[in-house]
Amino acid sequence: MTDEAAAPSRPRSYAKGVARRQEILDRAIEVFADKGAEGTSLRAIAEKIGVSHAALLHYFGSREELLLEVLRESEVRHGSSRDKQEVVGTMVRAAERNVGIPGFVSLYTSMLAGSLDADRQASREYFGTRFARIRERLAQLIRDGQHAGTFRRGVDPEAMAALVIAASDGLQIQWLLEPEVDIARSLELLERILEP
Amino acid sequence: MTDEAAAPSRPRSYAKGVARRQEILDRAIEVFADKGAEGTSLRAIAEKIGVSHAALLHYFGSREELLLEVLRESEVRHGSSRDKQEVVGTMVRAAERNVGIPGFVSLYTSMLAGSLDADRQASREYFGTRFARIRERLAQLIRDGQHAGTFRRGVDPEAMAALVIAASDGLQIQWLLEPEVDIARSLELLERILEP
Repeated sequence: MTDEAAAPSRPRSYAKGVARRQEILDRAIEVFADKGAEGTSLRAIAEKIGVSHAALLHYFGSREELLLEVLRESEVRHGSSRDKQEVVGTMVRAAERNVGIPGFVSLYTSMLAGSLDADRQASREYFGTRFARIRERLAQLIRDGQHAGTFRRGVDPEAMAALVIAASDGLQIQWLLEPEVDIARSLELLERILEP
Repeated sequence: MTDEAAAPSRPRSYAKGVARRQEILDRAIEVFADKGAEGTSLRAIAEKIGVSHAALLHYFGSREELLLEVLRESEVRHGSSRDKQEVVGTMVRAAERNVGIPGFVSLYTSMLAGSLDADRQASREYFGTRFARIRERLAQLIRDGQHAGTFRRGVDPEAMAALVIAASDGLQIQWLLEPEVDIARSLELLERILEP
């Protein structure tokens, strides 16, 4: 790479770069959904995906950034539809879907725990922002339901929103350790709190 | 250490060894309660605690084993009293106590996430066993309460037990990322599920 300036320059179009990046990301999501990424180096990930280590670095910059991008992209794809006025149901369906992609649950959990580490600024920002956004969205749904009379008043919307997210994250961890743990069955109990 | 055999042998009594190990463990708990251990090597831990790297290895065998021992010991010390017929209250008080020892919460969470990694057999066993034991204990308390009529029947005891633990773990993670998250306030909402 030291004599790069002397190499014949082949300008690659921006659009082609974007497409190639997306292609790599799609392949990464496929691989992680099945196997997770805990403990694998960027080099090992490159091998699994079937691209060069240099290409991964070029498009994503670091292992942490690649894995965060996998999480972001998966969130966009499986994003809960915003028009549904549901609080617990959305989480239940997400959990039911996640049971089919244990590697992804494992990736999510390991990135989440890693975000508590001081040197993982990007992960910390990702999860801090993500939690704040979901808490706000769920809290708003709860307030709306309370006004409409479909949810019990007197339940603090912010506290309930944090609880639903926490229960979902915590149950996924227990399920990874003990597959008999029934995530949906536990989550559904939360609906009782909101019953008018 | 290579000419150890030639050194004057000073047999150390088993009792002294146990006392020294406990002393190191006490110091480790003190250090971790404040700072956590995420990302620190066994060597850095030894330096923080103020003992030699060799002593840590001698008494605990590995970084993972030392950290698990810190968790085990803390659990014994702060262990919930078994005669209290509480389900949610115990978790609320544990959470309130943990707010004073953020380093410990961070250590617990990072060990928990690490336990999902295939090469962390000891951690996996520790958390698998720990969750199974707490789920069983809470489920029994719930069944007792249901027979006594103080808890609502029709709530699945195992599903409720898993939910309480999950909520507690998940809320601690959110709180580490956003100190405004009020763990106790969210956990207390769970009591509504068990109201007769």
